[in-house]
Amino acid sequence: MPDPIGFLGLGDLGRPIARNMMAAGHALTIWNRTAAKGDDLVASGADRAASPAGAVQPGGIVVSLLWDDASVVEVVESDGFLERLGPGGVHVSMTTVSPAGSKALAARHAEAGVGFVEAPVFGRPEAAAARQLWIAYAGAEGPKARVRPLFEAMGAREAFDFGEQIGAATTVKLVGNFLIISAGAAMTEGLAMARAGGFDAGATIEMLTKTLFPAPIYQSYGRAIAAGTAASGGGSAIPGKDLGLFKASAEAVSSPTPLSSLLLEMRRG
Amino acid sequence: MPDPIGFLGLGDLGRPIARNMMAAGHALTIWNRTAAKGDDLVASGADRAASPAGAVQPGGIVVSLLWDDASVVEVVESDGFLERLGPGGVHVSMTTVSPAGSKALAARHAEAGVGFVEAPVFGRPEAAAARQLWIAYAGAEGPKARVRPLFEAMGAREAFDFGEQIGAATTVKLVGNFLIISAGAAMTEGLAMARAGGFDAGATIEMLTKTLFPAPIYQSYGRAIAAGTAASGGGSAIPGKDLGLFKASAEAVSSPTPLSSLLLEMRRG
Repeated sequence: MPDPIGFLGLGDLGRPIARNMMAAGHALTIWNRTAAKGDDLVASGADRAASPAGAVQPGGIVVSLLWDDASVVEVVESDGFLERLGPGGVHVSMTTVSPAGSKALAARHAEAGVGFVEAPVFGRPEAAAARQLWIAYAGAEGPKARVRPLFEAMGAREAFDFGEQIGAATTVKLVGNFLIISAGAAMTEGLAMARAGGFDAGATIEMLTKTLFPAPIYQSYGRAIAAGTAASGGGSAIPGKDLGLFKASAEAVSSPTPLSSLLLEMRRG
Repeated sequence: MPDPIGFLGLGDLGRPIARNMMAAGHALTIWNRTAAKGDDLVASGADRAASPAGAVQPGGIVVSLLWDDASVVEVVESDGFLERLGPGGVHVSMTTVSPAGSKALAARHAEAGVGFVEAPVFGRPEAAAARQLWIAYAGAEGPKARVRPLFEAMGAREAFDFGEQIGAATTVKLVGNFLIISAGAAMTEGLAMARAGGFDAGATIEMLTKTLFPAPIYQSYGRAIAAGTAASGGGSAIPGKDLGLFKASAEAVSSPTPLSSLLLEMRRG
């Protein structure tokens, strides 16, 4: 029998992941700040909790996919959450946060004797539905061994173990999002130049993504940018706050941020 | 019998391309400003000309792979070059130049009744030796039909026809180089942040190039950047003059250059 799971955070990515877990046979108790977002899951058999702690089974597994550092801290510090999880319980934290924030969360869980696994996820909602997510994860071996089978149930195409060092998986996520945003900005500038010169931006990106850049991100964002249907911010759906997190996390360790600073300014435009 | 070819420009990329053409059975007459760079080709049976015009057969095909706009103009305007090529002759111009420069060259050839095909090439010298180049080309259909079989002989894995509009292939080359340099700069900044945070930059780029960025450029430059063995300028061997050409060409058509301006400043350090 698959483990029952507490699932916190039913945003655009959380919902299809929760649905995948239910399809894999997990009984879910869900919680979301705006309860109505879970209505279809409840209709499919999920239990609804009135608070984060209400979604927790003592010694059980709880998965969270929230908005930012503050929203994870708020859940973790909410009444009864850590107490109820207790020794043997594991929190799989999938929200994109800062490495420092993830380390602080891990320390807080350790104090309470609760296992903590950071497991940020790459993928748009469509990728979750298609079970094509990529997950990076890190944490102590005991909790990881217990939750490792869950990643496939969530819809991961592959999950990458970054060892015991909390922050390592979070860093991959921030770097990956930064690379995506950078690629989008470069394609935007490059294809604008082609178009302004009177050339075919679509044919330009078509060749480049068949040759130098045969990566889905270049292909899909590139096509949207060439067609003029891309969202602002370089055709990327990644929220500006993730770029801000990258920059702040780099500054926190005195690493230079010329490109991320420019990209952030451009987004704030 | 394959066409005899005049081959002008024996730099790091020109030499392996010339060697490929000889291996495909073309008789080559070579010219290079520094003649000694052709010694091994002469030893393999190439003829050596004392001037660009000396490498030309009337009505024949001449290939050039030089340094920049000015060096191509110098060759084209050198004594007897266009006159000797004459009607029916075709110049395949592979140097990375500006779209405006390529258009001016095409017009100059048209005046002289000489065919002109722009055919910039993507690939490092190793890729030429391994016959894994990518070539973009554009020009009038007549000359293109005549030179099209040459691209495979040069070592192209694939050649992409950008139609009759001169400048279209040149633009793809400038945009492609700009995207490569941008990706290198983003990886440099991203992996520096990982390293400064105490995390494994190699493992970080390893996951990202298996998932979001499965492109050889990310894989090879990324690995070099993570290992600290990358050349300055983001691990890319692309000369700064190509970035300058991108920016100048964008400015010439009033297209914005926030990223290319920053990258150029960073290269100038």
